[in-house]
Amino acid sequence: METTVRNFKGHLNKLNAYNHAMGVLSFDSVTAMPRGGSEHLGNTYAVLSQQIYELTVSPAFKDMILEILDHKDQVDYVTRREAEELYEQMQRTDKIPMEEYVAYQLEVNEASNVWHTAKETNDFALFAPHLQKLVDYSRRFAAYWDSTKPAYDVLLDTYEKGITMGELDQFFSMLRQELLPLVKEIAQRGQAIDDSPLHKRFPIEKQRKLSKRLMEVMTIDPNHCSIAETEHPFTDGFSREDVRITTHYYESEFASSMYSVIHEGGHALYELNIGDDIKYSPLGTGSSMGIHESQSRFFENIIGRSESFLSYILPDIQRLGPRALKAVSPRDFYRMVNKSQPSLIRTEADELTYCFHIMVRYELEKRLIAGELSVEDLPREWNRLYKEYLGVDVPNDTMGVLQDSHWSGGAFGYFPSYALGSAYGAQMLHTMEQDIPVWELVGRGELCPIVAWLRERIYRFGCLLTPKELLQNACQAPFDPQYYVRYLTSKYREVYGL
Amino acid sequence: METTVRNFKGHLNKLNAYNHAMGVLSFDSVTAMPRGGSEHLGNTYAVLSQQIYELTVSPAFKDMILEILDHKDQVDYVTRREAEELYEQMQRTDKIPMEEYVAYQLEVNEASNVWHTAKETNDFALFAPHLQKLVDYSRRFAAYWDSTKPAYDVLLDTYEKGITMGELDQFFSMLRQELLPLVKEIAQRGQAIDDSPLHKRFPIEKQRKLSKRLMEVMTIDPNHCSIAETEHPFTDGFSREDVRITTHYYESEFASSMYSVIHEGGHALYELNIGDDIKYSPLGTGSSMGIHESQSRFFENIIGRSESFLSYILPDIQRLGPRALKAVSPRDFYRMVNKSQPSLIRTEADELTYCFHIMVRYELEKRLIAGELSVEDLPREWNRLYKEYLGVDVPNDTMGVLQDSHWSGGAFGYFPSYALGSAYGAQMLHTMEQDIPVWELVGRGELCPIVAWLRERIYRFGCLLTPKELLQNACQAPFDPQYYVRYLTSKYREVYGL
Repeated sequence: METTVRNFKGHLNKLNAYNHAMGVLSFDSVTAMPRGGSEHLGNTYAVLSQQIYELTVSPAFKDMILEILDHKDQVDYVTRREAEELYEQMQRTDKIPMEEYVAYQLEVNEASNVWHTAKETNDFALFAPHLQKLVDYSRRFAAYWDSTKPAYDVLLDTYEKGITMGELDQFFSMLRQELLPLVKEIAQRGQAIDDSPLHKRFPIEKQRKLSKRLMEVMTIDPNHCSIAETEHPFTDGFSREDVRITTHYYESEFASSMYSVIHEGGHALYELNIGDDIKYSPLGTGSSMGIHESQSRFFENIIGRSESFLSYILPDIQRLGPRALKAVSPRDFYRMVNKSQPSLIRTEADELTYCFHIMVRYELEKRLIAGELSVEDLPREWNRLYKEYLGVDVPNDTMGVLQDSHWSGGAFGYFPSYALGSAYGAQMLHTMEQDIPVWELVGRGELCPIVAWLRERIYRFGCLLTPKELLQNACQAPFDPQYYVRYLTSKYREVYGL
Repeated sequence: METTVRNFKGHLNKLNAYNHAMGVLSFDSVTAMPRGGSEHLGNTYAVLSQQIYELTVSPAFKDMILEILDHKDQVDYVTRREAEELYEQMQRTDKIPMEEYVAYQLEVNEASNVWHTAKETNDFALFAPHLQKLVDYSRRFAAYWDSTKPAYDVLLDTYEKGITMGELDQFFSMLRQELLPLVKEIAQRGQAIDDSPLHKRFPIEKQRKLSKRLMEVMTIDPNHCSIAETEHPFTDGFSREDVRITTHYYESEFASSMYSVIHEGGHALYELNIGDDIKYSPLGTGSSMGIHESQSRFFENIIGRSESFLSYILPDIQRLGPRALKAVSPRDFYRMVNKSQPSLIRTEADELTYCFHIMVRYELEKRLIAGELSVEDLPREWNRLYKEYLGVDVPNDTMGVLQDSHWSGGAFGYFPSYALGSAYGAQMLHTMEQDIPVWELVGRGELCPIVAWLRERIYRFGCLLTPKELLQNACQAPFDPQYYVRYLTSKYREVYGL
């Protein structure tokens, strides 16, 4: 058994190294690589991917895993969970016929390229046949994985283990019922907010300084987390010792980069605070997309858009920023960055209306996968739901159904994680407030105890626990979206004087 | 045979991919990686290096190579040269007993770490036993590779194929004889140069703009070559489609980054202009260190420090730079960037005195490898030669024998390439002047025909030709250092009014 475990860990170490190399190549490709390098990179990706594939499905590796799973009582908990996790990944690949898997990968590549063109040229018809193929693949794969469950439930499970349509239907219907009237009330009777100072010129050199300051306040160790600039902000964690966040600076939109830094900083804190026992393990990363988003959105919205935090950080912003901000009070600044307005683009939505963007996508992909909605009818349904939920008219598909890349990458069941994350965060806040004086600390810029609370309850476990177990562990209660609804309602009624 | 060639190319493609990944990991580690990521990176390097080693010495690969070499007439020239090159690399590894090779790699790592500490603390004695071991290893390896030649000749051959001590002795003795009197004459009777405007504050944001402008003038395509910032400037070429140069900005030393961009830009032009037939081949890179340096130094010194080029670029520098530069004439600016002064540090030396720094190292490593100089006596000999050649007193080993990293990495025989490169460049200039109106073009900022000349004669061949063959091809004559001596003498006599 000792030999098996040693070989198993050696194999994981190799997989880790290849995944690390692939991760750095990908990070480099959007930060430093000249555009013309992509063809050559494609070849290198192909060689390394094949090696990763071979390591993942290797029969010798399977034997090690099965032996460990047969003698769970003889190994430590981490090893057992590693074997379970890798077995699950292996099964997922094994159950798809090889030729179909390869054909799918090619189709994803193709669809992704076509989507770029289709979005640029507002040509949904160009993308439609590819989307149809990806929907068909996803339905078939779901059946291979577990034919006893509805396909969409099987897909959801790959992004947020344990979540089902039943729960999500309830979740989203509660949000709709409680929040839609509030959105309408704000539009009709809310006190107007003038956020023009947010759009004044803020030199990029100074925005870079603000980013450093924000990372410092968030207790992000620069020795283990760097910041780079990319078209779209993201976070990569190669291990808890090497995390990268990125942002994009716009000279006349400093709040955009400010909040992307805080958002990505939340993701980074999670990766930076993985427990010692799994720091180099494949389990040493976020448990799920939803839990990861709970952290980025917790810092971006709950902390970063709170009056306490803004009172603390405003002097720094005034020191670095445009003259128009000098006379702004913390209260006014707070209202500016919380301005709510139904809009067309998900990634630009405010905290309150964001979940409606997700709801549209959830409704549509659920019906696509169930075979109840045809790809042909998708744009019309998209536009209808945007009108119904957000009251906006979608002028074209580029700003509508073609706006996100997810479906073109074959990711069906991914979107709900975004909304779940926000709701998880609100529930965590509720529990945290019982334990520590959150707003007093935030008002003094002391985020250490908050990060420590999250490390203890969430971060250190990595993938050792499922999202549901983590939430139970953090809040001593199952998931309850009431906290999210209450948080948003009370915050936005107050911001808009309702 | 067709199958063999196909398998051979497939194997090369894999090797290429792993080397690409290692290259990007290394580039990333000094540009974007947070410092704390190095431990994890070490593990990834180890896994990939082992894979590269196994691919390089694989018996199946050896069989392919031998079959190709046995049927040279049945394959195209590129394939034949690839097989020869890879066979040579394989032989070099094969001839060293495995345990010794592993022990050597460990010693290089160790020595490199110790050297860092020794340099920081000015403690040569700490480094000495490691240097001794590396000298011993190098002598033994040279004997494994070719016991019929002097060890130092064997080592030289690994950096600059075909060059020997005999040629280098003659080369350096000519330089000493012709240039030492000039250096002394400048010190005694040269017209003084006031270069204080070069040391005024030049904001880094504006230096970055100057770098872009310089790359543009050099005809470097930004679609295939990016620029990043590192502690020490360097160039990485992952293929002719993806080249990276780096620089370091000092606010009060803009000429430092300006000339590092032109220098690295010269390396980049070489990599960017490899021929179509070898663009993804292991032969698709510079032929040798010396030829590579000939290109970087050609652009940095011969072009970049010429009065024609400086007249052309000065208005751009004046537009971006400090007020103190506004009133400077092209002639004065030319004299400033060509100020010559014997100094202690090789990397900061001017064009004229640079070769004396190399001479010191050449003399010493030649005697170390021959067993005629003990490591113990090395610092004393270093200081004696600096006094003799450059007339300077070395105050401590940090600024003396410990300044460069090369020996700590086991690189004996590498230094001469720097001086050879400068001399090759001068000979190429002489030939180029017969073919095109070099200085007229440079004065108008038209570098295209110059790059085209170099592409035709040098760049496109990659490693298809040896350094000697390349020089013969470019200049229709063997290497002749007279051109270098004449170039330096006439330039510096004129600059100093002698």
